[in-house]
Amino acid sequence: MSAFDHLDEIAPLLIWPGVVGRSVAGDLTTFTYLELEPDVHVPEHAHANEQVGVLIRGSVRFRIGDEERDLEPGATWCIRADVPHQVWAGPGGAGLVEVFAPARDDWGDRERLAPAHPPLFP
Amino acid sequence: MSAFDHLDEIAPLLIWPGVVGRSVAGDLTTFTYLELEPDVHVPEHAHANEQVGVLIRGSVRFRIGDEERDLEPGATWCIRADVPHQVWAGPGGAGLVEVFAPARDDWGDRERLAPAHPPLFP
Repeated sequence: MSAFDHLDEIAPLLIWPGVVGRSVAGDLTTFTYLELEPDVHVPEHAHANEQVGVLIRGSVRFRIGDEERDLEPGATWCIRADVPHQVWAGPGGAGLVEVFAPARDDWGDRERLAPAHPPLFP
Repeated sequence: MSAFDHLDEIAPLLIWPGVVGRSVAGDLTTFTYLELEPDVHVPEHAHANEQVGVLIRGSVRFRIGDEERDLEPGATWCIRADVPHQVWAGPGGAGLVEVFAPARDDWGDRERLAPAHPPLFP
């Protein structure tokens, strides 16, 4: 199996309504490019996986624990294990590179989407 | 300590000659934006840390194990633990988002650079 891939070739999964993810599966990490549709809200949730990321395009409002910020490209975040978080995409949507560790083993039931359009990246 | 930061505010480290990194320190991961100067060669090396990434801008030639590829933005790679790899930046340099797991505890001796210019991102 090749060490290489491309976001254009990775099967998109519907992670949340309005949130599509394309992932590279490491042994210790899941490395994902997530695209949020305009004005999508990902409701508060938490998981044991640490989640670190950077905003590539668009804008989001992120709430992590008790902190809430409006973010622009280049902004980063680090969500420790089990810390509740939620996010709202701005009117232009958003593109985020995020890593989860340990690897996500709970995305197997996510709907596999037809790759109708390539990802908007960066 | 805040969960948030910004690439413009993160202290740049000289990871290799011609390679500057700005990192977010997770508990399980080191999440880094790496900038390679034009035509830089990072010589073959290996480490126990898994290394997964995506090319954000510019171009690189990447060799991982016995595979060698010329990459453009959107290309991804997954370097398993202890697999030798090397990279050559293209004539316009390159910007890469990469994650290392376990976290890098061996970058403490890297030279801390004056943040003379903000990172080029994305």
